[in-house]
Amino acid sequence: MQDLSGKTVIVLLSGGLDSMVCAGLAREAGARIVALTVDYNQRHRVELDSAARIATAVGAAEHIVLPLDLRRFGGSALTADIDVPKDGVGEDIPVTYVPARNLIFLSLTLGLAEARRSQDIFIGVNALDYSGYPDCRPEFIAGFQHLAQLATRDGDKGVDFAIHAPLQHMTKADIAAEAARLGMDAGMSWSCYDPTPEGLHCGLCDSCRLRRKGFADAGLADPTRYAVEA
Amino acid sequence: MQDLSGKTVIVLLSGGLDSMVCAGLAREAGARIVALTVDYNQRHRVELDSAARIATAVGAAEHIVLPLDLRRFGGSALTADIDVPKDGVGEDIPVTYVPARNLIFLSLTLGLAEARRSQDIFIGVNALDYSGYPDCRPEFIAGFQHLAQLATRDGDKGVDFAIHAPLQHMTKADIAAEAARLGMDAGMSWSCYDPTPEGLHCGLCDSCRLRRKGFADAGLADPTRYAVEA
Repeated sequence: MQDLSGKTVIVLLSGGLDSMVCAGLAREAGARIVALTVDYNQRHRVELDSAARIATAVGAAEHIVLPLDLRRFGGSALTADIDVPKDGVGEDIPVTYVPARNLIFLSLTLGLAEARRSQDIFIGVNALDYSGYPDCRPEFIAGFQHLAQLATRDGDKGVDFAIHAPLQHMTKADIAAEAARLGMDAGMSWSCYDPTPEGLHCGLCDSCRLRRKGFADAGLADPTRYAVEA
Repeated sequence: MQDLSGKTVIVLLSGGLDSMVCAGLAREAGARIVALTVDYNQRHRVELDSAARIATAVGAAEHIVLPLDLRRFGGSALTADIDVPKDGVGEDIPVTYVPARNLIFLSLTLGLAEARRSQDIFIGVNALDYSGYPDCRPEFIAGFQHLAQLATRDGDKGVDFAIHAPLQHMTKADIAAEAARLGMDAGMSWSCYDPTPEGLHCGLCDSCRLRRKGFADAGLADPTRYAVEA
């Protein structure tokens, strides 16, 4: 990671393991962190508490939690009354896909970047151990970076925006190991799409399965409390 | 305009003259209209009332007014305590530019399009009589349409999204004439960035100047009540 000392960066912080490590890498690079969390009225709004803990842990200069009620649109198991699949990670893009979510969220980070005179945006997408969401793929991130130049006043004036996706080519095991290397407590983060009434990770949704497999493959203790054991 | 009978389209509806005519053209094309208005805590929130009137006038099947508080970001005369310029339309991009606004709004329309199984989005941008905002230019709109394919599940499955910007190459006089041709009452719409306490158009901001000049150049009666006469 390049040295970002003295630079303000915008970190898209969901509260999940990936965004936690992404924020940790921005901190390690010496950046001044402005964290953005979108409260999109998601099924697993408990992740907002994790985002707040992580923002504190990385010493964020500012943490904006922005309400944006995507339940008004619906169309996803995370924003409508559609069951979260529990039968394992499949080949197709699953119903937990939220229409255009990463494009919406990156667009918001870009607006915030301009307003804070930042040109660096961090997002924790990865396209190896993931659910096949199109908006996690490298070509989407590259396309967004290109469009950022056309979409903004700063881009028009020649500022080069950089969309940093440092986990892009990591497996979930790599990410779990990276959390350990950074000395971050992965127990701060939240992954489950369908938390139990007792506030546990369900253990069966795609996101729980990927998380659990990551710690196992990395040979690391998993701090997560799952309702269903492996 | 192509025939859109039976198709659901998403219309980005600010409540201004341009979005009004844009919605009128979608209606004329026979489309079923889902209108999206973003309440971004803008200085001229009175435009939301106009958006509601226009949505009714065009017979929108659905009108979503979505709160998204861009004042949390600031960085614009429309979303922060910065004076709205009153000295005429200049060469530079003015401080009324809202960071990444059209990218944020188009991203939202794209998410809504996917959720409503629509592939057609209408936006009333034009790049002739405008304030030089980069996110009104044809290359931005084309770039967004390209990225829409990479950003979405539907795009991944081969659905071709179309971003319709039917006012792209119209002057403000053309747009005023188009409103008349469509039989729409331009008095429904709101343009002013800095409404007076009495609820009048200020008459001096860029948006008022462009609006007034449009009606004058078209040789049409201007239904607008300006605080300062020409």
